[in-house]
Amino acid sequence: MATKALASWAVNLSYSSLPPEVVRAAVASFYNYAGCAIGGSNHPTATKASTALAPFFGTSTSSILGSQGKQKADAQHAALINGIACHIHDYDDTHLETIIHPAGPVASALFAYAEVKRPVNGKDFILALVAGIEAECKCGLAVWPAHYDIGWHITSTTGSIGAAVAVGKLLNLSVEQMQHAIGIAATQVTGLREMFGSDTKSFHPGRAAQNGLLAAVLASKEYTSSLTALEAKRGWANVVDAKPHQLDKYMASLGKEWETAKNSFKPFPCGIVIHPVIDGCVQVRKDMQAAGANVEDIESIHAKVHHLVLELTGKRTPKDGLEAKFSVYHGGAIGLVFGKGTPSQYDDSVVVDPKVTSVRDKMTATADESIRADETIIEVKMKDGKTFQKHITHAIGSLEVPLTEDLLQTKFLDQAELVIGAEGAKKASERCWALESVDDVASIAEVL
Amino acid sequence: MATKALASWAVNLSYSSLPPEVVRAAVASFYNYAGCAIGGSNHPTATKASTALAPFFGTSTSSILGSQGKQKADAQHAALINGIACHIHDYDDTHLETIIHPAGPVASALFAYAEVKRPVNGKDFILALVAGIEAECKCGLAVWPAHYDIGWHITSTTGSIGAAVAVGKLLNLSVEQMQHAIGIAATQVTGLREMFGSDTKSFHPGRAAQNGLLAAVLASKEYTSSLTALEAKRGWANVVDAKPHQLDKYMASLGKEWETAKNSFKPFPCGIVIHPVIDGCVQVRKDMQAAGANVEDIESIHAKVHHLVLELTGKRTPKDGLEAKFSVYHGGAIGLVFGKGTPSQYDDSVVVDPKVTSVRDKMTATADESIRADETIIEVKMKDGKTFQKHITHAIGSLEVPLTEDLLQTKFLDQAELVIGAEGAKKASERCWALESVDDVASIAEVL
Repeated sequence: MATKALASWAVNLSYSSLPPEVVRAAVASFYNYAGCAIGGSNHPTATKASTALAPFFGTSTSSILGSQGKQKADAQHAALINGIACHIHDYDDTHLETIIHPAGPVASALFAYAEVKRPVNGKDFILALVAGIEAECKCGLAVWPAHYDIGWHITSTTGSIGAAVAVGKLLNLSVEQMQHAIGIAATQVTGLREMFGSDTKSFHPGRAAQNGLLAAVLASKEYTSSLTALEAKRGWANVVDAKPHQLDKYMASLGKEWETAKNSFKPFPCGIVIHPVIDGCVQVRKDMQAAGANVEDIESIHAKVHHLVLELTGKRTPKDGLEAKFSVYHGGAIGLVFGKGTPSQYDDSVVVDPKVTSVRDKMTATADESIRADETIIEVKMKDGKTFQKHITHAIGSLEVPLTEDLLQTKFLDQAELVIGAEGAKKASERCWALESVDDVASIAEVL
Repeated sequence: MATKALASWAVNLSYSSLPPEVVRAAVASFYNYAGCAIGGSNHPTATKASTALAPFFGTSTSSILGSQGKQKADAQHAALINGIACHIHDYDDTHLETIIHPAGPVASALFAYAEVKRPVNGKDFILALVAGIEAECKCGLAVWPAHYDIGWHITSTTGSIGAAVAVGKLLNLSVEQMQHAIGIAATQVTGLREMFGSDTKSFHPGRAAQNGLLAAVLASKEYTSSLTALEAKRGWANVVDAKPHQLDKYMASLGKEWETAKNSFKPFPCGIVIHPVIDGCVQVRKDMQAAGANVEDIESIHAKVHHLVLELTGKRTPKDGLEAKFSVYHGGAIGLVFGKGTPSQYDDSVVVDPKVTSVRDKMTATADESIRADETIIEVKMKDGKTFQKHITHAIGSLEVPLTEDLLQTKFLDQAELVIGAEGAKKASERCWALESVDDVASIAEVL
């Protein structure tokens, strides 16, 4: 009875039962989501979608993020477009056990609908967000990894269900209505991995947000579905998984083990395998600065890395921002030159800037069997013979070394400034951090 | 290269290359679709959806069928709601080899969008409709039967693709844009069979219509997807099928073997296994009338049937219209009492009407190994000892004995009259039959 178990748990979940670290993680997840959605909002993948769909927009209730409240659409289209935007730079949150990016589908649906169902206060919003994230991650765990291996984009296939539970929670659905909402969401299995590398990858979390929002709204008007949609013989888990699913096991852990608390945030907008190198080079730069050493005086850079780093990101001379995401050498160079890796350091102009390429060309990397995927050893030799070394045992952004609130804020500002300016980004950041105490979540929308 | 083959075929398809029987079948498919959509439009499954979603409606461009042009929505919502309505009574068309109901997803998307992109003339509409129906049926054949056996509702999983190709044809997409449209549609795999028996079953063709419409509109604005969405290793066919797919084989048959021409139309709004009995009893009634015999004077009725008839539809004393759909005895009774089986004969009041139940209770049925699924032998004994017998070798509505245009018209009128009155139904019927010659398909909408 997984469907009923999930529905019943979500309907009965109260704010007072949320551990403080879960509330903190939920706020951070929303905060990171908002920054990524603003950051992606002016990318062609998002603007093509909003241009194409504008003729279908309904009443302007819900904000398109990145427009500071100036562009609105009906909640369904806002959910789609914000859900697309937040995923474009591959910079969103990650539930590491399932590699689900949980916030996108859930927060996109919830935030868009919170502007319809006003006022939704911060606590109710967080409660619904947690219900949704738990729903999608538990469903994901139940079918992981076979489901992903077959070819499903797990973020969106589970995201539809998460979004339905979240909006259903906001709508105060009964247990049976929530079961129907889960069913209507579950029957919309959106997301093939084959679409990776195209605009459609980002479409997935956006459409999942819509799927779930639609499901919850229909269920609230007594639209019916299967009451055992997840676990039935021809239900979701059996149809989308290649192995016997583990729904019961994971539904039994609802409220006992919190997936929301395990959400992690990428520090850099590129493949996760490069993260240790960027982290290491950022730290070497600090040591160099403390010792009065200049980047111009570097003789050579060497990184000992996990073999996947060279297999996946061995591009020696990337020509633009997209190629740079697959170059560990660009990653090392920006760490040393800028002391950070934000979307600005992946701008096409930066990738071919001689200040960057001259450092990049001094770098070598070798795979070493003793190095784990989130580990690296960086060695920088200066022209005067001095050396700087850094051993990164767990890269920043891993569960062991999570992104600090400061770094999360820097990440937000770095993305948002490019779209809404420094002043706007600062205001947006403050408003998002204060999520728990707002009386009407819609009041946040106008600054995002 | 199945995706490119399908896209290229659809883009290059011209009206002059359509054989006359394909045009006839397409018009009949649209006609039957329109009748079913009007017939289902006032059912709670449709009205719950339109009530729930009305707050999200955009500009009123596209008609909700059954309202005679009085209710409109944006094209996406009209496509959804008409797609739901047409499937509610399980009365829509059937491509027998795949049991896809082809017209619902395709015509719902196309008709709604034709009211946006005015004027679309009848021939262009038919051309797009054929392209869409061929696309969905060829995709369906390629994954049949394993895809259905796993638990996918093949009407909607292939319907999304069909709707995308149809609307893409209307939008004059390039071959590459059409490939992207197919990809965006293919990634939205909507429809689990687990939902059968609930409102969500009818949601499937409606959502498929939306999925495809959305895909084509996005692709028209250069939104990208995989160019090999159907055949890639992690593409549609491999992910949704349990066996190696047969895409190449069926794509090679495009334009050579026309699936549209194989579309069939149900004469009765109930499970297909009861159809021979209703057909037989309707014919016995004609013989009785010719001989001056009255239904009241029947002593007993016996039907020799295929074993599935009793397994699936053996309900002796149905209590309402829904239960009656699973009663071969009700089917026989309405054939003898009314000489037809239309939605009116499945009204709750008719099911408990003594005129019907007294006949029903005189009926027995036995399974016989020699009887095929579309066959029956009916024997009616009168109180005066006279008997009437009818051997139905292939029930009406089968490929061997297709519904005549007259019967298709009766089916349309029987459904539509209940919603828009006899006068309205007649007008709607005439307008739909004239599809090929209209200058603007939108002119049909106002009478449906």
